[in-house]
Amino acid sequence: MTGRLDGKRILITQADDFMGPTFSAAFRAEGAEVIEDRSDLTVPEAAAEAVAAAGEINVLVANLAAPSDAAYAVKVSDERWNRLFDAMVHPLHRLVRAALPDMMGRKAGKIIVVGSATGLKAAPGTAPYSAARSAQVGYVRSVGVEAARFNVQINLIAQHFVENPDYFSEEFQQTDAFKQLITEVPAGRLARPEEDAALAVFLASNESDFFVGQAIPFSGGWAQ
Amino acid sequence: MTGRLDGKRILITQADDFMGPTFSAAFRAEGAEVIEDRSDLTVPEAAAEAVAAAGEINVLVANLAAPSDAAYAVKVSDERWNRLFDAMVHPLHRLVRAALPDMMGRKAGKIIVVGSATGLKAAPGTAPYSAARSAQVGYVRSVGVEAARFNVQINLIAQHFVENPDYFSEEFQQTDAFKQLITEVPAGRLARPEEDAALAVFLASNESDFFVGQAIPFSGGWAQ
Amino acid sequence: MTGRLDGKRILITQADDFMGPTFSAAFRAEGAEVIEDRSDLTVPEAAAEAVAAAGEINVLVANLAAPSDAAYAVKVSDERWNRLFDAMVHPLHRLVRAALPDMMGRKAGKIIVVGSATGLKAAPGTAPYSAARSAQVGYVRSVGVEAARFNVQINLIAQHFVENPDYFSEEFQQTDAFKQLITEVPAGRLARPEEDAALAVFLASNESDFFVGQAIPFSGGWAQ
Amino acid sequence: MTGRLDGKRILITQADDFMGPTFSAAFRAEGAEVIEDRSDLTVPEAAAEAVAAAGEINVLVANLAAPSDAAYAVKVSDERWNRLFDAMVHPLHRLVRAALPDMMGRKAGKIIVVGSATGLKAAPGTAPYSAARSAQVGYVRSVGVEAARFNVQINLIAQHFVENPDYFSEEFQQTDAFKQLITEVPAGRLARPEEDAALAVFLASNESDFFVGQAIPFSGGWAQ
Repeated sequence: MTGRLDGKRILITQADDFMGPTFSAAFRAEGAEVIEDRSDLTVPEAAAEAVAAAGEINVLVANLAAPSDAAYAVKVSDERWNRLFDAMVHPLHRLVRAALPDMMGRKAGKIIVVGSATGLKAAPGTAPYSAARSAQVGYVRSVGVEAARFNVQINLIAQHFVENPDYFSEEFQQTDAFKQLITEVPAGRLARPEEDAALAVFLASNESDFFVGQAIPFSGGWAQ
Repeated sequence: MTGRLDGKRILITQADDFMGPTFSAAFRAEGAEVIEDRSDLTVPEAAAEAVAAAGEINVLVANLAAPSDAAYAVKVSDERWNRLFDAMVHPLHRLVRAALPDMMGRKAGKIIVVGSATGLKAAPGTAPYSAARSAQVGYVRSVGVEAARFNVQINLIAQHFVENPDYFSEEFQQTDAFKQLITEVPAGRLARPEEDAALAVFLASNESDFFVGQAIPFSGGWAQ
Repeated sequence: MTGRLDGKRILITQADDFMGPTFSAAFRAEGAEVIEDRSDLTVPEAAAEAVAAAGEINVLVANLAAPSDAAYAVKVSDERWNRLFDAMVHPLHRLVRAALPDMMGRKAGKIIVVGSATGLKAAPGTAPYSAARSAQVGYVRSVGVEAARFNVQINLIAQHFVENPDYFSEEFQQTDAFKQLITEVPAGRLARPEEDAALAVFLASNESDFFVGQAIPFSGGWAQ
Repeated sequence: MTGRLDGKRILITQADDFMGPTFSAAFRAEGAEVIEDRSDLTVPEAAAEAVAAAGEINVLVANLAAPSDAAYAVKVSDERWNRLFDAMVHPLHRLVRAALPDMMGRKAGKIIVVGSATGLKAAPGTAPYSAARSAQVGYVRSVGVEAARFNVQINLIAQHFVENPDYFSEEFQQTDAFKQLITEVPAGRLARPEEDAALAVFLASNESDFFVGQAIPFSGGWAQ
């Protein structure tokens, strides 16, 4: 559309999941070259391999998803708990560790974490998920400061209530549970994925060079 | 440049002060028509008059500034204290009260408050200023939720460490006090006003329709 | 009971209102001498006079209340708006300015602000009240840091959903509006005033010497 | 001293580490019976066994520590990263899962997590540690709400800058690095462990029955 990402090479992980397809399309529409990774990042070596295979990149989008798997905490087995951390938390560190040194060396780069507003605010019924998403927020805050002095910006989209098949399926949107849930959203609706992508474009572009280690709520006012 | 604000009429207050000139230029560059108000908003009637004179607007930018006037709280007279609230807090309510009903009626509109990160985080040495800026944040959070159900988005730029003659003069930037201060900014520098304007463009455009009552830190990581 | 405040002289303002009677009783039960001020603190000179009349004090409790006066922001006149700031915000600064220098000189003292959780979290329907309470929070954060180096601790009780005739009358507790409201409180109930007083005793005692400029939510989990 | 914990049975984990010895002494001084667990909670079964062995308890203190192990994120191996989550995050869930159902059944109980202020605020140089501590905060916020309706209160002490041999050894306190670090603490000093224990006593007692899912900063104003 307007070339806001002209000349940027962007690596996005889990390219078929969560915000992957929408973000890739939006980045391309703004002129970026998008490298889509589809490897299983729960494999410890996969993160480094994905980054190495991508070559020099300007932006890494850590798009890490796992089923939210609602349940009261006391019902959650170690296996279910670990699955969340294995999918969303540990790979984040491995991706950053693989991509950041080169960006720091070039004194330019961006890392965008596709996270969750449940990392900022209580989400009863999904405490383990909330714990994993909070770990992402805490990591971004601190490593964001470490990277800033090298002109690399790391920020997180703290999203919730965004239309996507993983978390808000068409069927779920027809239920009373969903209708009750949406009353908690001041905007009174789900976001369209394209609105979320507009924030991702902003964070991938040089327009966000003064954003450092921030978890930006994108949740229709649910978290502020 | 890219027409992101094509067809928008934007009213900006204190158009010659604080972020006024930079924001106006950026809005125009994106296709907006900008109405610049220069009235003294400490006069109680001025806010309503400015809004009435502007006619139908899509965006109100409450750009309200007062000298930060650093001093330990115990040294601050009632007169100095009141000056801050008279310039930054009370006019905000009067502006919102004047502009919001029409936006709510049309089920569309945006209000952007040019606020401060000192409204989010301790700023010793400027406690009265911080109190006034926190009042803005609290107001935006709550009225933002009230407005959201009518598809009007109210958000605040919680900025700090942005180059501008009111807060960071050329002379001040040469002092040791400034050099000490800048060590507290993870980005290690002041923002250029144009970077701040990029956030304002985002918030004025429909790209931010899912942002509700948020105070977005823009401070190089000082506040996150 | 247990002498946790033995030897402390505590000045409490608006002693007949809000948390005044309950806090005074709790302080006395723990061994404190309580000086109850009942002056109208909207009068600019009243704060300094109340502090002067009290003599040397160890703790100042800024208990400042105004009717919450629920209304959508667009309906709130300047007069109603000003009443909130005149009652809760401006007197706070005048009280701190009057009491703090002597405490700093003695390198010991505490100031407790009886504030509100609406100063931390959106409270649609009471945006002006929320703005005033947020101003208190911002002030305490910053002046708290200024005072800490002199071993004076300034903190704020960010309360909500505490039984008291000013905000939750017996009649209101019988309404459907109240029953709906209480569903937003994870604890599922109002706090008894004595529970709030237990926090005030903690903050007045030397047990809280490492708390600096904090707004402590006391709201049954509504704000965290 | 004053019997504030008379009749309470309190289980504390890692009783020889971190805040264990000081908290145990303080709880006993207030009349509690303290059960000290010393098992290695990185063993998956250990949490359930420790809770079972303790019998009926009124309070669980999840005192989980690991060396902070400062290092820039890009230097931290998977092994070092996992050690933090294995010691502080995963056992927290297993302890809560083991202890909470019985407390919920009895409609009374408390869980106190000895956490860190680095879970609330950027701590560059220890991003992995900060991530793990943030996971604790996010978990407590959400499970705290789940438990509150059963009159069980789960809260977290978000501490930093507390004297203790694990994080602030005598030797480290003599270094220039420490002297620089302490300038970031508004209180200008480390807390004595006994001051931290006073907060733990408050949270273990019925004085905190209206605190739900909160991470309470205890850091001399570093985090507020």
